[in-house]
Amino acid sequence: MGAVQETIVLTGHIIDSLILAKVLDTILMMGGTFDLEQVSIGKTRKESSRARIVVRAGSAKLLSDILRAIQPHGATVEGESDCQLRPAPSDGVFPDDFYTTTHLPTQIRLKGEWIDVERIEMDLGIVVDQKTSRVRAVPMAGVSRGDAVVIGRGGIRVTPLQRPKERDVFSFMEAQVSAERPHGHIISDVAKRMQTLRDGHLIGKPGCKVLLAGGPAIIHAGGREALTWLIDEGFIQVVFCGNALAAHDMEADLYGTSLGYGLSAGRALPHGHEHHLRTINRIRGIGSIDKAVETGVIKEGIMASCIRRRVQIVMAGTIRDDGPLPGVITDSVQAQAAMRAAIPGVGLALLVASTLHAVATGNLLPATIPAVCVDVNPAVPTKLADRGSFQAVGLVMDAASFLRDLARELGWRG
Amino acid sequence: MGAVQETIVLTGHIIDSLILAKVLDTILMMGGTFDLEQVSIGKTRKESSRARIVVRAGSAKLLSDILRAIQPHGATVEGESDCQLRPAPSDGVFPDDFYTTTHLPTQIRLKGEWIDVERIEMDLGIVVDQKTSRVRAVPMAGVSRGDAVVIGRGGIRVTPLQRPKERDVFSFMEAQVSAERPHGHIISDVAKRMQTLRDGHLIGKPGCKVLLAGGPAIIHAGGREALTWLIDEGFIQVVFCGNALAAHDMEADLYGTSLGYGLSAGRALPHGHEHHLRTINRIRGIGSIDKAVETGVIKEGIMASCIRRRVQIVMAGTIRDDGPLPGVITDSVQAQAAMRAAIPGVGLALLVASTLHAVATGNLLPATIPAVCVDVNPAVPTKLADRGSFQAVGLVMDAASFLRDLARELGWRG
Amino acid sequence: MGAVQETIVLTGHIIDSLILAKVLDTILMMGGTFDLEQVSIGKTRKESSRARIVVRAGSAKLLSDILRAIQPHGATVEGESDCQLRPAPSDGVFPDDFYTTTHLPTQIRLKGEWIDVERIEMDLGIVVDQKTSRVRAVPMAGVSRGDAVVIGRGGIRVTPLQRPKERDVFSFMEAQVSAERPHGHIISDVAKRMQTLRDGHLIGKPGCKVLLAGGPAIIHAGGREALTWLIDEGFIQVVFCGNALAAHDMEADLYGTSLGYGLSAGRALPHGHEHHLRTINRIRGIGSIDKAVETGVIKEGIMASCIRRRVQIVMAGTIRDDGPLPGVITDSVQAQAAMRAAIPGVGLALLVASTLHAVATGNLLPATIPAVCVDVNPAVPTKLADRGSFQAVGLVMDAASFLRDLARELGWRG
Amino acid sequence: MGAVQETIVLTGHIIDSLILAKVLDTILMMGGTFDLEQVSIGKTRKESSRARIVVRAGSAKLLSDILRAIQPHGATVEGESDCQLRPAPSDGVFPDDFYTTTHLPTQIRLKGEWIDVERIEMDLGIVVDQKTSRVRAVPMAGVSRGDAVVIGRGGIRVTPLQRPKERDVFSFMEAQVSAERPHGHIISDVAKRMQTLRDGHLIGKPGCKVLLAGGPAIIHAGGREALTWLIDEGFIQVVFCGNALAAHDMEADLYGTSLGYGLSAGRALPHGHEHHLRTINRIRGIGSIDKAVETGVIKEGIMASCIRRRVQIVMAGTIRDDGPLPGVITDSVQAQAAMRAAIPGVGLALLVASTLHAVATGNLLPATIPAVCVDVNPAVPTKLADRGSFQAVGLVMDAASFLRDLARELGWRG
Repeated sequence: MGAVQETIVLTGHIIDSLILAKVLDTILMMGGTFDLEQVSIGKTRKESSRARIVVRAGSAKLLSDILRAIQPHGATVEGESDCQLRPAPSDGVFPDDFYTTTHLPTQIRLKGEWIDVERIEMDLGIVVDQKTSRVRAVPMAGVSRGDAVVIGRGGIRVTPLQRPKERDVFSFMEAQVSAERPHGHIISDVAKRMQTLRDGHLIGKPGCKVLLAGGPAIIHAGGREALTWLIDEGFIQVVFCGNALAAHDMEADLYGTSLGYGLSAGRALPHGHEHHLRTINRIRGIGSIDKAVETGVIKEGIMASCIRRRVQIVMAGTIRDDGPLPGVITDSVQAQAAMRAAIPGVGLALLVASTLHAVATGNLLPATIPAVCVDVNPAVPTKLADRGSFQAVGLVMDAASFLRDLARELGWRG
Repeated sequence: MGAVQETIVLTGHIIDSLILAKVLDTILMMGGTFDLEQVSIGKTRKESSRARIVVRAGSAKLLSDILRAIQPHGATVEGESDCQLRPAPSDGVFPDDFYTTTHLPTQIRLKGEWIDVERIEMDLGIVVDQKTSRVRAVPMAGVSRGDAVVIGRGGIRVTPLQRPKERDVFSFMEAQVSAERPHGHIISDVAKRMQTLRDGHLIGKPGCKVLLAGGPAIIHAGGREALTWLIDEGFIQVVFCGNALAAHDMEADLYGTSLGYGLSAGRALPHGHEHHLRTINRIRGIGSIDKAVETGVIKEGIMASCIRRRVQIVMAGTIRDDGPLPGVITDSVQAQAAMRAAIPGVGLALLVASTLHAVATGNLLPATIPAVCVDVNPAVPTKLADRGSFQAVGLVMDAASFLRDLARELGWRG
Repeated sequence: MGAVQETIVLTGHIIDSLILAKVLDTILMMGGTFDLEQVSIGKTRKESSRARIVVRAGSAKLLSDILRAIQPHGATVEGESDCQLRPAPSDGVFPDDFYTTTHLPTQIRLKGEWIDVERIEMDLGIVVDQKTSRVRAVPMAGVSRGDAVVIGRGGIRVTPLQRPKERDVFSFMEAQVSAERPHGHIISDVAKRMQTLRDGHLIGKPGCKVLLAGGPAIIHAGGREALTWLIDEGFIQVVFCGNALAAHDMEADLYGTSLGYGLSAGRALPHGHEHHLRTINRIRGIGSIDKAVETGVIKEGIMASCIRRRVQIVMAGTIRDDGPLPGVITDSVQAQAAMRAAIPGVGLALLVASTLHAVATGNLLPATIPAVCVDVNPAVPTKLADRGSFQAVGLVMDAASFLRDLARELGWRG
Repeated sequence: MGAVQETIVLTGHIIDSLILAKVLDTILMMGGTFDLEQVSIGKTRKESSRARIVVRAGSAKLLSDILRAIQPHGATVEGESDCQLRPAPSDGVFPDDFYTTTHLPTQIRLKGEWIDVERIEMDLGIVVDQKTSRVRAVPMAGVSRGDAVVIGRGGIRVTPLQRPKERDVFSFMEAQVSAERPHGHIISDVAKRMQTLRDGHLIGKPGCKVLLAGGPAIIHAGGREALTWLIDEGFIQVVFCGNALAAHDMEADLYGTSLGYGLSAGRALPHGHEHHLRTINRIRGIGSIDKAVETGVIKEGIMASCIRRRVQIVMAGTIRDDGPLPGVITDSVQAQAAMRAAIPGVGLALLVASTLHAVATGNLLPATIPAVCVDVNPAVPTKLADRGSFQAVGLVMDAASFLRDLARELGWRG
């Protein structure tokens, strides 16, 4: 044991943000050992702390694994040098040993200087534009042959999240997924954020968009009016959805049904799925959802309000789709790119009743953007938490009840 | 094949209530065969139909199994004789081959006359009081040595449920358990029933009580105010619950928390479970919930409103309980008996967020009483449907959202 | 009431297959009335029955809705004429009032003759090739301008499913979704089917392929070896999956992990998600999964066995994907078309641990192909049952336990 | 802010067990502030650390809440004095402000000496026998008038759990509830523990009993043979269950069915619930399960093996029960007491497919006893984790698959 070693440094609120503890714990859990060379702890909440730790492991491979594992907690190797770059061997392929990103704020060292990585997101590579010295996180499919890609672990610095100053539900930094916890005040905290963000957005403050990624259960279960109201009132700026949500929303407008359930009759109409198909066929005939709204064919609902309020919609296709509707991006790589392009400026994400959209959006969000994941199935928030989406709060309740309660909290009279 | 046979008769709306079809299907599925001797079908909706069917099976045992299986559909053996009686061999034990009840309206033939079985319920025996000729369904633990118990299958007639005339959600006679179906109109139909039942109850009409059987998630998730309002407004006459619901309700009154979640703060107070225990200890010190309400220690909430409105409460104990509170019936046989005694007069059952109470109550309800089963976990309504609770409607949503929507539908301004 | 009427005819095993009962029930439930003009019932199981029914409704719209609703039960309007055709107005758009298919065997009447609709599937349109008189079910995106599309409801005949002759789990024709029902014999019946189908497939009998549509939980939960064995032994001919299953399978081969869980260590490796990305990057570098297997980079597992056994793989992309792997069809319309093309010849579908693939595949399957849907979340089989997938059996258990038990039943010694 | 303050001391592995971090975090989260007066950190894994912390809060109430919240992490107030005692005001009632226990090892200071609290368990009070100076955790219902009960927070010391030395699944000290994590190695670790415990138990080593608390889904889903084998082989010493598990087990022996599902036929027998009732009636007639086994009426299964192997069974009644069987403890307070009495000596708890028994047993277990909670519904392990059962590992899989895999791992050939 202890054949190889490396000295790392931690600085910041490493005590009260659990960072030092997690680093030491991870080292031991993975089978390494450590010596604490020096620890100076800030005596008050404001002072920052600093620790110098010698990490030892039985093999170079294990040491490397440990350093990798503790890096997201901000551990940087002492005597840090520049990061290493290697050209991508072909389009869409990173060099071996490419550095894979976390969704935490990240910097790389180039010519002695620490430079922020733009568009940070989980599970990407880092590409350096050597002319401009700008550095970006890039998805695998987005790299071009010859691009300078960061490899290895040296010269990379990750800043762990600090506990946010606002003392609301997001400050707990842990997914809450129990169905037995009270919802009211989580929803109330979310509503307060949305109020603040809308105020900020109205005066052009950046980072004040609210993103809703949702599934068709929003319509089935009766959340359509509430969501429409939230859009009308300017609480939502970006919508990610699939073909089904859009089609059911417009089916409700054209036929008063959703997947064959008469929304005003409350019961299944035999073969009501037909309405769903006729809706899609009709919009295909018209050519676009925009035109269907402009010409008055579609009068009300989520789509109509999005178009009228110029809310950005990204509709991604899946193999479950009928049709699909015009405007659905059927290519998943293109759809992901469109979603990615819509993230900057988002300050809060609501992930409602869609495992696919919740996880896909969760993957694209930097850790600094708070997210609420709502699903009647507790497995969905758990899945998100497993991926390490730090500021995600899970709510086990049905989509309609969530949206209705949220809208009421913001002034809806439904 | 066809070694033994028996002729049965079916009468009533056997076509449009699926009864004939189900009987023939069951015979074939179980390995028997049949000849339709005579079928006269009512030509309009009002006329009743009649079928005479020869059932054949390869063995007397199989024939007996088939006859047993089709009996709940109203199949009676032609040339029916009186039912057979045998004395119970000891207290709490039925004779071998005792007839086990369904939860459908049932009659037995005694001295040539068909007599209604009182207090019908699933999985009981039938006891005849030979002096008064009154006939009752009796639980195993309730039979006394020497009681005349119905055995075998002869001389027993079960009336299958007809589709109810009201065209609301209960008329579908099938559990709906999908989280993807609309809730709004199911809740609206339930609310209409409750309005009608309250009106009936106020003028002393029998069968107009509403029973709520619920679990503590009602409090945790934020449904306490809505349920309290429903009780205050006279919409609920009987409450079945456990120690936890009562304790959390009174904890909310005394401390503003539920299981350590500050209901007004929306977040976990470390070790807030303490409040739960202090609440129980305090009520134990006072001696009863009634006294705690009368003396003003407990001011508001479900328990306070139940006591003020003279709503009947049956609290049943479990091995999970802290305390328990005074008034909790810790013996499960006694608690079941108390629940059973409270069923007559109930016209609608709401089974909310408690698997234990939902299934236990479902077992006690005659098939003629409609029930709504609400749980965020789809397995609970499914479990109820598996037991064959005919008029049960399942709703996959959280308890608080259900109660709040229901109360709003009935006029609550919360 | 009764302003408009139509006479319909039902023939076949309309009594014991519940068909007559369901038709009459549907008429009443939807608000119509009926007169049974003539009913001749086959006296034994083999004789077929026939009913002539006058259906009455208060409006032409309601009558049309009722006729539509009872058509899947085989109800044909007396004095049936040819079906009506209308040209598609543009590419990818059906004419208004196009007939939307069920997944039941369907015929249309052309020039007095009944012609089978090929490639039947739920929610498509019907296109007639007027030169060859061949008739096909076609997805919306697949219709070309001017194609002759069936509209309205006349001249279309649907054959309801008969109860299958084999007396195994599929003969119940109803989704079983309870976690509390025994699994052993369902799995045993599935295994028997798979044995029979493999025997058939080996001698070139048509309709003997087995399709597995699965999600990555198969790998995470430990079902990889069992599924690999099933493929090696020739029990599976078609695999539908996504990028994740393929990547995790090959990650397990290259790194011994799945999503960062060391499969041989049983615990989370911090940031093990990296292995997932490196696996994808490596295969992208090699160019294809085929080449990775041929060159010996990928040695064992699901992908390796599929390629060696020439099992057809359709990998469909989603917005959750990293990479994706070469071979993943990123366009959802193209992926759906590839899945659709792989359905003919399938005699059994196993839908395991993937809501997306289970529902997408369920949508493409004719009602005559039995399917087993396995998921630890009871909502998935319920969702499938809601869509009316008749011969689907639901099993609430984890993917790995299912595949391991199934493989053991077929001779695996794992 | 900072109006009141108190100095606390932490010692032990407070860094790598996250203890210091959690304490500081809790202080800040609850609205207090702190100064780190002195921190000496052990430089290697073996050396222990020590911190002296001044905690400040805006009010005495808040300071008290904070001290309460950090006490389970081992924080003791400097200059600690004896604990305070007050007599119980009446039978079954603690004095106001009684100290409520955690499930962690606890000591109280009496006359300057620290004394271990025996039979520690969550949510009890602490009673001092003033003659013997023995100290016990006592449930509310178990206290007698005049008993000396610990009140307040002073003079009480709680030892937080250290990370266990064995590097198996329990050493992670966190509930794992995702259905998407691998099961194989968790089960393998559990099997290894069971092997070690059986070896220990055979040579009379204390703390080597294995407790299984289970629900009837074990039988329905097909886990009966595996569990019977585990009992026969001496892997289980204590069984907690309800009436249903016992009745279904014996029904399977007498009739080959479970809740009407033919275990050898794999399908529902109409009205098979009858077998369940006949089984219970028969055992009631015989008088006891013991006698039914001894007389050869019940030949095989869980109950038979328990009785033959002298495994201790505690059967607790609920309001769902039919019968119940003789031997079922129908009083919940008595049943809880019987369960409590069976806990000492247990070294591992398997909580399988029963929310009620899992939570009830979880409440009774000291934090030092590792537990595995298996349920197909992820909410059950989550519920347990919410209560703070530290060494509990959650497994989302069906009961039968778990028991069969576990038994196979231990040598079963089923």
